[in-house]
Amino acid sequence: MPTRILDREDVAWLLHKVGRHEIMDEVIAALHASLRDYDSRVIEVRKRDGFNYDRRRGARFGAHSVEETGGLLEWMPVLDFGADATIKIVSYNPQNPQRFSIPTILATICRFDIKSGRLLALCDGVLLTALRTGAASAIATRVLAHPDARSVGIIGTGAQAVTQLHALSRVMKIDHVYGFDTDPQAAHSFASRVEFLGLDVQIVDLERLEAAADVIVTATSVAVGKGPVFPGRDLRPHLHVNAIGADVPGKFECPRELVETALVCPDFLAQAVVEGECQQIPEEQIGPSLIQLVKKPEEYSRYRASRTVFDSTGFALEDKVALEVFIKYADQYDIGATVEIEAIPADPLNPYSLPEVALRVLGRTAGTK
Amino acid sequence: MPTRILDREDVAWLLHKVGRHEIMDEVIAALHASLRDYDSRVIEVRKRDGFNYDRRRGARFGAHSVEETGGLLEWMPVLDFGADATIKIVSYNPQNPQRFSIPTILATICRFDIKSGRLLALCDGVLLTALRTGAASAIATRVLAHPDARSVGIIGTGAQAVTQLHALSRVMKIDHVYGFDTDPQAAHSFASRVEFLGLDVQIVDLERLEAAADVIVTATSVAVGKGPVFPGRDLRPHLHVNAIGADVPGKFECPRELVETALVCPDFLAQAVVEGECQQIPEEQIGPSLIQLVKKPEEYSRYRASRTVFDSTGFALEDKVALEVFIKYADQYDIGATVEIEAIPADPLNPYSLPEVALRVLGRTAGTK
Repeated sequence: MPTRILDREDVAWLLHKVGRHEIMDEVIAALHASLRDYDSRVIEVRKRDGFNYDRRRGARFGAHSVEETGGLLEWMPVLDFGADATIKIVSYNPQNPQRFSIPTILATICRFDIKSGRLLALCDGVLLTALRTGAASAIATRVLAHPDARSVGIIGTGAQAVTQLHALSRVMKIDHVYGFDTDPQAAHSFASRVEFLGLDVQIVDLERLEAAADVIVTATSVAVGKGPVFPGRDLRPHLHVNAIGADVPGKFECPRELVETALVCPDFLAQAVVEGECQQIPEEQIGPSLIQLVKKPEEYSRYRASRTVFDSTGFALEDKVALEVFIKYADQYDIGATVEIEAIPADPLNPYSLPEVALRVLGRTAGTK
Repeated sequence: MPTRILDREDVAWLLHKVGRHEIMDEVIAALHASLRDYDSRVIEVRKRDGFNYDRRRGARFGAHSVEETGGLLEWMPVLDFGADATIKIVSYNPQNPQRFSIPTILATICRFDIKSGRLLALCDGVLLTALRTGAASAIATRVLAHPDARSVGIIGTGAQAVTQLHALSRVMKIDHVYGFDTDPQAAHSFASRVEFLGLDVQIVDLERLEAAADVIVTATSVAVGKGPVFPGRDLRPHLHVNAIGADVPGKFECPRELVETALVCPDFLAQAVVEGECQQIPEEQIGPSLIQLVKKPEEYSRYRASRTVFDSTGFALEDKVALEVFIKYADQYDIGATVEIEAIPADPLNPYSLPEVALRVLGRTAGTK
């Protein structure tokens, strides 16, 4: 009963073998198809839930001294009824780059066969999260941005910015890219990190960025209560925003006036009203979801001339789709080792009936230990 | 940033190397210590949540034909604040033994470092669930059963029954074991599955079992609404029951009259009122939790002469403890391979910066593929 593992080497190998443009295009196409065909009677997406360490930061209980820097650990389950279930477990530790030289967002994705409950696959979720979040923005941008949009402003030029710009470049012609980050190092290194796209990238101040951008992406770690991340004083009349930084109640990135007046489209309403830009407006003011946009794009095409916001909180369906793309390529190239993680006993009614395994291993290691 | 994997071979090896009595004793001792030292400001246990396939069984949506047999997939998270988080993902597919010759309950356990969000370890949860559920019953039995209790009745002699009886045998002297199962095969094979305990095991009818038992364990897959699993007409005045079958709302195993009159002690109140025997009584009638029992056993010792029920719904803290016991032994014997699952990039701000991995692997496999 093996579990297939797609690890760091495997996803890196596929990224280079298949090509990042081809993989991004495939994730965009597969996500588009999943959204278009979405049927809530077949696919059950759960709202993200998790632990928020901020709550008890700096506390001291008995022998425990708690010196945390804040962060989240969250689980994102989605059930494909009659087939499988996918659960991404994702962490958000915004001090990771400085403290440990690792990304803010780490993740792994598990897939289960629902007929038996078996763990079918375990896959990296770091690269896949970046890809699928980019793909979602690309799909929203294709439906909501002005047809002549050519300039992109990126606020928060960290890890997610790379795949955001990459994904946008696959669905729109980009003449100019304007970047901004409160961290000078992240701003400074952005152009080299997206050099493979061959775009004109300038680091500018927020005023210049917001005045010049047809499409804005916000991908920040702004703290709760510290938003918005751009002033919103001089925005283009047809501006489309992909606000992707949402991950915790109270955090938002867009100016309230923009959210009040624009067409605001959540990826997943139940989550967006808790964590996303939709927190800023009454529920009856919220526009169609990404699923509704994709199912009937013609109904919303008139909004391309006005201001629109894609409230991207991160949707478990996206993780399912990204996993399926990687499993497809892994099958094609026969990549990914298998491990028997679950201790399936020889007799299903006897959890201790693992002797053949143990004796084999004891025998093997007796001489080597 | 490797993740340590304790797979089927590893846990089987440890079970045989360390010895199952020693491992069970260690899980009982470690769980007892964790319950005794439990501080809800430091340990945050989440109520089990999950997908229940029963809800849409036999449905047909568009192209999807759903021919399911019912079952669950659930996640059980627990946070040790300032240290780590443990999430067990557990499935319950009661037709597994007949359909696939695998256990009803499958599981894997993940551990995360909360400072960085990294996946530290991934371990089998099949053996560990059986062990920790046994250990919880042993602890409840030690506090609540009559000091002279010598006979054990097991209703539902499947996989969990093996570790239930094993755990009880570590904390009480057992003269007689009476088993019952609605499945003749499970009943017939029980004695041989617990032969290693050297106990006198008889398969009897429910009337004989309930009349003769000082301690009863219910470990059944009884369907929702089909309980109780024993009549409760002729119970000993000091009977202690470990009811461990709870896993879904509406399911219970004990006769209502017993639950109404006994001291009912849940492992985890919030879960027991939804899934456990506690569903059958008003909340104000529920007795102390296992944690309260362990913290102040002397306060409840008078109940040993009367009827008591341990309402064991399965508690994420137990999984955390079982994982820690296995990690301790794995450290001691240097067992468990490491895998880099998370695609940590060379540059934390660039998810695509995995070239050294990809080139190494592309180079290596170019000749072998």
